Amino acid sequence: MKAEVITVGTELLLGQIIDTNSVYLSRKLAEIGIDLFFKTTVGDNIERLKKAMEIAESRADIIILTGGLGPTVDDITRQAVSEFTGKKLIFNNDILLRINEFFKNRNIEMPECNKIQAFLPDSALIIENKVGTAPGFILEHNSKIIIVMPGVPAEMHPMMENVVIPFLLKKEGYLKNVIKYKILKVTGLPESEVNDRIKDIFENSNNPSIGVLAHQTEIDIRITAKAEDEKKADEMIEKMKKEIYNRLGENIFAEDDEILEGKVAELLLKNNLKISVAESCTAGLLSFRLTNIPGSSRYFMGGVNVYSNYAKTEILGVNKDTLERYGAVSEQCAKELAINCRKKFKADIGVSITGIAGPEGGTKEKPVGLVFSCIDFKENIYSFKYNFSGNREVIRARAVQMALFNLYKLLKGSN
Amino acid sequence: MKAEVITVGTELLLGQIIDTNSVYLSRKLAEIGIDLFFKTTVGDNIERLKKAMEIAESRADIIILTGGLGPTVDDITRQAVSEFTGKKLIFNNDILLRINEFFKNRNIEMPECNKIQAFLPDSALIIENKVGTAPGFILEHNSKIIIVMPGVPAEMHPMMENVVIPFLLKKEGYLKNVIKYKILKVTGLPESEVNDRIKDIFENSNNPSIGVLAHQTEIDIRITAKAEDEKKADEMIEKMKKEIYNRLGENIFAEDDEILEGKVAELLLKNNLKISVAESCTAGLLSFRLTNIPGSSRYFMGGVNVYSNYAKTEILGVNKDTLERYGAVSEQCAKELAINCRKKFKADIGVSITGIAGPEGGTKEKPVGLVFSCIDFKENIYSFKYNFSGNREVIRARAVQMALFNLYKLLKGSN
Repeated sequence: MKAEVITVGTELLLGQIIDTNSVYLSRKLAEIGIDLFFKTTVGDNIERLKKAMEIAESRADIIILTGGLGPTVDDITRQAVSEFTGKKLIFNNDILLRINEFFKNRNIEMPECNKIQAFLPDSALIIENKVGTAPGFILEHNSKIIIVMPGVPAEMHPMMENVVIPFLLKKEGYLKNVIKYKILKVTGLPESEVNDRIKDIFENSNNPSIGVLAHQTEIDIRITAKAEDEKKADEMIEKMKKEIYNRLGENIFAEDDEILEGKVAELLLKNNLKISVAESCTAGLLSFRLTNIPGSSRYFMGGVNVYSNYAKTEILGVNKDTLERYGAVSEQCAKELAINCRKKFKADIGVSITGIAGPEGGTKEKPVGLVFSCIDFKENIYSFKYNFSGNREVIRARAVQMALFNLYKLLKGSN
Repeated sequence: MKAEVITVGTELLLGQIIDTNSVYLSRKLAEIGIDLFFKTTVGDNIERLKKAMEIAESRADIIILTGGLGPTVDDITRQAVSEFTGKKLIFNNDILLRINEFFKNRNIEMPECNKIQAFLPDSALIIENKVGTAPGFILEHNSKIIIVMPGVPAEMHPMMENVVIPFLLKKEGYLKNVIKYKILKVTGLPESEVNDRIKDIFENSNNPSIGVLAHQTEIDIRITAKAEDEKKADEMIEKMKKEIYNRLGENIFAEDDEILEGKVAELLLKNNLKISVAESCTAGLLSFRLTNIPGSSRYFMGGVNVYSNYAKTEILGVNKDTLERYGAVSEQCAKELAINCRKKFKADIGVSITGIAGPEGGTKEKPVGLVFSCIDFKENIYSFKYNFSGNREVIRARAVQMALFNLYKLLKGSN
């Protein structure tokens, strides 16, 4: 069965808010195996919304609308659905009482305009709104299902989870398949290299299918399996996962909701290791990411953001001679920073980053994007050199990502 | 003239990424007065994309597509547009050379699959991609305009701004009204307080209209004016802006694309002041934000992320007695951190943050969300205490935001 999502609101067409509702609905539908082929956004205009519903009805079995159920004149979804289905809007006193109570509980008198929210299309199945005033509703029309919910996420989510999903699950014939996913997170390789390594699987796989999505510092490979039950889908995913690990295993650092700093934290805790960092061009981002994990005080001792040469020499004791001979952006400086910060914080591991984030400050020998990073891991020194492309933001993000990834590999390897 | 945006990508229909492209395009179109009545999202499927283009062509004059221009087999936009318009895909050697150069500059051999990106529909106007490999293009078909751009925002934005908007502006008859915006950025007040202060303007204004949008650490008030020309629109905005400054001026820190750390940087540079920071619970985020600005080495000396008590006492010389008597999360500790880090880095200003970011570590006396922050501004000490609500991420973001905002106010006041 196919669904189409229609989000209603002129603010969405003016770019004033980001449409997170359709993202949420997409996920929820995928979870119960309902295909979504189109999403449409329409403004607060009855005729255009009716037109969009007509198109949706021609290509989907389930139409889910969100937004436009508020009490003001530009909330036109109720009226549009009524006109589209030919089902008159009928006053419902129970709903009015509930709306009244909503305001009473907040010591506010119900504004006159909210009365309109007690009018719903004839024969609609009402979806109670436990968070706000506008109820949602479900209609059947031309053997299609029309589901209407408010646009406020906090109101819409419980309606979807408590009423709409159980409703759809009960409808016979709606659910034939289960869709399951697995995301493998890759870093340290360009997108094209990732593509080349899995191209043949990619091209020859229909179910499970795979998709590749590049972010600023990582590439997600998504395996999607469609099967008659969860167990079968899990098996299909497992098989494909093995194949992808064969090609990219070295660069896969996490799955699904796991994050790189979380994986690093796990290994630090497991081995009872303390870490400290020294950051020049990234000025705190590595520290910040390492402490994204609750309880990070068990492994993170602290860091110094040695943005100036003064900080490098006076706070972390880098040799003045090193700066003069090799410059602040050099392997030598990175080494001293890693070693000295490990010692200074009495940690087991010291990590340093120094580089040129740009847009200015680059030279022919040391261009923007040049980054040195060192890890002093119990007095073994590991050095890394990068030439990152991208703007200041991207270069800083990538420098930190690679420092975390190198750390992850070292910790994993030493286990 | 009417436009329709079509975003292409199965990942959008599965809810794996949020569609920020259509938000961006919505804003850009509104700015030049082009109406957008529908947005559609389609998966990586040629037939369905052609169907969506057919519908779009029936109700819009300009169709803007993003996504699906990558080098892999599931990038189907080129092919779909070619089939839809009947314009064959033609190989373009100049583009191939450019793509080749892109990889050469990165010391990577061009993957074979990228060649496909040098094929474009016959008679297409090419939009150069200065950031990535896939060029965009513009086609005219049935007296409609079809604009195709990659889905990667960093590639798409410059194409839109440098080529597409000038192209549309040149097309006669496309522009009747001008829509202009002004965003006023507010921080340090809850959303409900902001709403209460401007409620009457909000309710009585149609053109210019105002919208309020709350983010994690700031609230944006957007003034939107529609007029026959820019000058008129600017005047309308200016008048409304004054009214809003009357109500919220103290908490407005920036307009439009300005960011808080940028405003702080301006004032530091203007007054030739050097700054250093000491962060406990925010562990580097304040340092990182202060260095988001290119050239920040002119004012930022460095920082210490004093996450452990060891770092507080041994690196920044906080009195052990202070920690014992008042704890690490205390005004006394925050003061010593600010003073000592200013001295240690030989800066004019020292800023400190210490608090409980949670989810664990809170007590009845010192609950999660309690944050102390101090500013030592040329030996004048300013102390701040907060009880932030929200999760770990939100508490850390807000603590840094308020430290920057306090700094901004102090710097502004001392001018």
